[in-house]
Amino acid sequence: MGENKKKKCIVHFEPSGLTTDVPAGTVLLEAAHKVGIYLSSICGGDGYCGKCKVIIDEGQFQSRPTTLLTPNEINENVVLACQTKILSNMTVTVPKSHALQAGQILMDTDAQRFRELTGEAGAGVFKFDPLVRKLCVEMSAPTVHDHTADHERLYVAIREQIDAPIMQTGFRILQGLSRLLCEANYKVAVTIGRRGGTTEVIEVEPGNRCKTNFAVAVDLGTTTVVAHLIDLANATTVDTEATYNSQIKFGEDYIRRIIYAEENNAFEEMQSHIVHDVNDLIVTLAARKRIDLQDITAVVCAGNTAMVHFLLNLDPTRIRREPYIASVGFMPPIRAAESGIQINKRGLLYCLPSVAAYVGSDIVAGVLATRLYTKKNLSLFVDIGTNGEVVLGNRDWLVCASSSAGPAFEGSGVKHGMRAGAGAIEKLTVCPDASIEFKTIGDTRPAGICGSGLLDTLAELFTKSIIDRTGRFKTDGDFRLTEGEEGQQFQLVPAGDGYQEIVITQTDINNLIRSKAGVFAAIRVLMASTQTKPEDLDAIYLAGGFGNFLNTKQAITIGMLPDVPLEKIRFVGNTSIAGAKTVLLSRKALETAEKIAKSMTYFDLMSHPGYMDEFIRANFLPHTDLSLFPTVKLATEKI
Amino acid sequence: MGENKKKKCIVHFEPSGLTTDVPAGTVLLEAAHKVGIYLSSICGGDGYCGKCKVIIDEGQFQSRPTTLLTPNEINENVVLACQTKILSNMTVTVPKSHALQAGQILMDTDAQRFRELTGEAGAGVFKFDPLVRKLCVEMSAPTVHDHTADHERLYVAIREQIDAPIMQTGFRILQGLSRLLCEANYKVAVTIGRRGGTTEVIEVEPGNRCKTNFAVAVDLGTTTVVAHLIDLANATTVDTEATYNSQIKFGEDYIRRIIYAEENNAFEEMQSHIVHDVNDLIVTLAARKRIDLQDITAVVCAGNTAMVHFLLNLDPTRIRREPYIASVGFMPPIRAAESGIQINKRGLLYCLPSVAAYVGSDIVAGVLATRLYTKKNLSLFVDIGTNGEVVLGNRDWLVCASSSAGPAFEGSGVKHGMRAGAGAIEKLTVCPDASIEFKTIGDTRPAGICGSGLLDTLAELFTKSIIDRTGRFKTDGDFRLTEGEEGQQFQLVPAGDGYQEIVITQTDINNLIRSKAGVFAAIRVLMASTQTKPEDLDAIYLAGGFGNFLNTKQAITIGMLPDVPLEKIRFVGNTSIAGAKTVLLSRKALETAEKIAKSMTYFDLMSHPGYMDEFIRANFLPHTDLSLFPTVKLATEKI
Repeated sequence: MGENKKKKCIVHFEPSGLTTDVPAGTVLLEAAHKVGIYLSSICGGDGYCGKCKVIIDEGQFQSRPTTLLTPNEINENVVLACQTKILSNMTVTVPKSHALQAGQILMDTDAQRFRELTGEAGAGVFKFDPLVRKLCVEMSAPTVHDHTADHERLYVAIREQIDAPIMQTGFRILQGLSRLLCEANYKVAVTIGRRGGTTEVIEVEPGNRCKTNFAVAVDLGTTTVVAHLIDLANATTVDTEATYNSQIKFGEDYIRRIIYAEENNAFEEMQSHIVHDVNDLIVTLAARKRIDLQDITAVVCAGNTAMVHFLLNLDPTRIRREPYIASVGFMPPIRAAESGIQINKRGLLYCLPSVAAYVGSDIVAGVLATRLYTKKNLSLFVDIGTNGEVVLGNRDWLVCASSSAGPAFEGSGVKHGMRAGAGAIEKLTVCPDASIEFKTIGDTRPAGICGSGLLDTLAELFTKSIIDRTGRFKTDGDFRLTEGEEGQQFQLVPAGDGYQEIVITQTDINNLIRSKAGVFAAIRVLMASTQTKPEDLDAIYLAGGFGNFLNTKQAITIGMLPDVPLEKIRFVGNTSIAGAKTVLLSRKALETAEKIAKSMTYFDLMSHPGYMDEFIRANFLPHTDLSLFPTVKLATEKI
Repeated sequence: MGENKKKKCIVHFEPSGLTTDVPAGTVLLEAAHKVGIYLSSICGGDGYCGKCKVIIDEGQFQSRPTTLLTPNEINENVVLACQTKILSNMTVTVPKSHALQAGQILMDTDAQRFRELTGEAGAGVFKFDPLVRKLCVEMSAPTVHDHTADHERLYVAIREQIDAPIMQTGFRILQGLSRLLCEANYKVAVTIGRRGGTTEVIEVEPGNRCKTNFAVAVDLGTTTVVAHLIDLANATTVDTEATYNSQIKFGEDYIRRIIYAEENNAFEEMQSHIVHDVNDLIVTLAARKRIDLQDITAVVCAGNTAMVHFLLNLDPTRIRREPYIASVGFMPPIRAAESGIQINKRGLLYCLPSVAAYVGSDIVAGVLATRLYTKKNLSLFVDIGTNGEVVLGNRDWLVCASSSAGPAFEGSGVKHGMRAGAGAIEKLTVCPDASIEFKTIGDTRPAGICGSGLLDTLAELFTKSIIDRTGRFKTDGDFRLTEGEEGQQFQLVPAGDGYQEIVITQTDINNLIRSKAGVFAAIRVLMASTQTKPEDLDAIYLAGGFGNFLNTKQAITIGMLPDVPLEKIRFVGNTSIAGAKTVLLSRKALETAEKIAKSMTYFDLMSHPGYMDEFIRANFLPHTDLSLFPTVKLATEKI
């Protein structure tokens, strides 16, 4: 074994032509990363996402058995790179189809579609004034008559360009400053970061590298982690990527993960997982755009309170215990490296502020991105993720609550549920002839169903009378209704060439109904507490990583949102990342986020007397009280 | 040898009764330090200061030969602890006389005597508002109805006590905060430090340790390093200590040290020496007062620009090259640990701001301490150290210059010169009967001559006609005038019981005259440039580590200071440390120091056309132009 490990194997990748040598026994995924080839590994190399398929053209290898390869694929030497050890020199082909282009397209479309909401530069909502930026600083060299020290000379020159009354510079920079200024003839690129009222000199480089400066906005979801790479020189989103949160193996919701961490003293392990996910996204984005990690100087995160605590290894244990307290709500910027995030070694990590243990910075980001806090009339903001958070208010007041809805609409807890990535069914109709029409993200082979597809499915099954108002399958013999391992299930897509059968089970439906019921109950509590009637609502913003074609009508049909005129409902996509990006691009936006977080009044639903009753009533399609859903009543009566 | 080293020896110290065990071969000084006994080792254990004498009552040892012990001492088993290896169990007596009490007394007296200048708390000059302080913070515990996160809860409570609009907290503190607050029932001691406009939470401790908080003020001299230990609870100086700057072996002045560092790439070595000196002082003070180093939370340094650069390993090379530029003039606070200074691991290191490469923060400290910048009338501030810096001005303007006077008045470059510590002759008179009266610091056996003693000596030799106006010994056969190794020398003190002969040589006298000439020439240039006449001067402040009994009249006699009425001259001692202490105790004082540093106009004497002429003219006693010194002319004519 010792001998074998010492043997070096040359691995040649096609079509890139890149080559590396690694010790025999090295996992193929690692060899690919080593040579700079990005293979998607959203499961973190654990062998269950099936994303890292490659073809071994030549050479010996050893693969663990997997159910994610078809017999055909196995015959063609297709392997999961993360489950395959290299035993000899080899040639490997990386299929184009396994890159995440489809997923990218979705994210980019997202970025375009919601631009007017997010206040990106040019939109005029917030002034372009990023948290971290590069300045081209030119100074006159010192003379006997101008003997200002180098450090103060630099400050004077910086202050000619920006407002920076309080400045700080890292000690290591100061130690090398004099030599650097001399060698660069007093012309340097200075990276500055804003930390509260303080402006920090993060990096000083010789010459003019002022245009090369990137940052990453991250949405830290319980189920999904999304990252956008931003070019700070022109405030554009150059690329996006998403992955599953690899903490998922410790529990689907964060409460279970906190319990796991407590019972196993695994806080560092939890941190290491989420940090790994974020790093994986950043490395992927950087590699794809051929950007040096040193040129990424900031990361801005939004996420629920627990995820932010896990990321920073702050104590999350009191989030789950009365009186439900966060360690930190307004996290000060720190060096990204302090948390393990690998960007520029002095780059900064910002986290948006949160409201409470159960209303995190992702929700503050949503309020910021939808600009709900600026409007005269009342709006409702609903973010469906692993939890369902609701905000109601206007420019005068904001109330919020969180229902532990469960991650059904993120595809978790649903047999064929998946993230809104390539191959996900994002739109689905049951036709009058009982055939099913659907559309997948990227128009590829169907791989599963994402949030918007699940919403469609639930609504279609209900309106086409395949399930009753309690969500149970009607047993009048639809040919698609079969008995699966988990009881009754409805076939949405039969197995085809290169893809499996896709079904929805009774359990799936129950989970989806419970999830929407939690959200609607939360909405009802907030509206009742503030004496808001549905007609008082000027707008409903529905956020979440659903997919592109969210049918807002269906959200009323299943009783997730109040029955308001459809034009009042806007699907706004992932507002957590939109808000994070807005903050990244404008200091003023961060200040605004802080004001929003401070001004939001939190309702604790667990201790709220009316919540449980509302939840039980909402566990029907659309609701026990049909008078709350007149348009749905009318439509179902028509059938 | 291997065997021998492994053998453990028990070492018992008298009169303390303390015992330790160490491996055979351990140096006795280290064994003493290990058990917490402070033995002065101002040479850093190199065996040339002779300060660490102890008596071995019993046991085997091995000592390196030394000239610092008399034959009597050797017979009595007196050894230098730093030059002695322990070979067996032993009993050691630490003589009381070898503790530095006498030195301490001098420093404490200093602290008392100049209190009115230094703006210590109570003096009313600056409000007591130290750079670092401890607060006792009590919060109400969170409830369901008061779910503020722990971090923000702490901030709210801190802001109830102090003005802190911008706050920062170290990431590691945040990570442990929640648990700590819980366990401490939300009653904690919080150490806060001021960094520019930012207030940093340096430490959070459970319970009430609010009264235990210390800081150290340091004067970083080229020849001498002085430290004062301050109790921040009541703003008192609890102890003081001084040592020689151990960089001295690399050159007496800092220019030579910069050259050495450049030629040998020894910047880190230079830093390590001065950091070692500062640590040695801090450890000594802490051990003597039985204070935990963790309870020292700040160090404030004043010193010349080069020494501050060495301490921080900032690039000092351009200090010595035209156009003579510092890397950093206004050094931001850093963690003391970053520079290697061993106090609380998150404790802060502040350096007072400097004016130019040759007018350092020690001079800014002096202007602050003497309050020259507040006065309507003109004053002159003269600081005699290794260099001689001069400041002239009032509340409207300040000009300054530095003469490379050389360290003669600090005792360096003078055969029997020494720091103003125990045993130093600080006062000396040549009596009419040619006998010599003198006084030593601590009234102990004479060990050498410090600054004030050297000033007296030069003036007395001149006024008693033992030397002529050029400083040369008159050869009319004074019985004390002998031929030594370095040519003619004058015996000040004959050898006695336990002390050596003390003489002053022709070279000593030449060095002293050159030193005073540099200072006077600088004064002349500043006065001429600002058209200031001696009668315009309201006060002359003379600073330096001279000794307690500086005879200001003699400073005129030798032509170091302008011939003004004696009541206008005030000896103000070590204003560098006084200013550092003032800053430590008041944020406002630090702000004022920054204003002072910014407002001072620096004159570069090297490039000044008139300086060299003035210097040559001043190389006489008192001067070539006697009309500048009418009172001296009168006095010498009388003789």
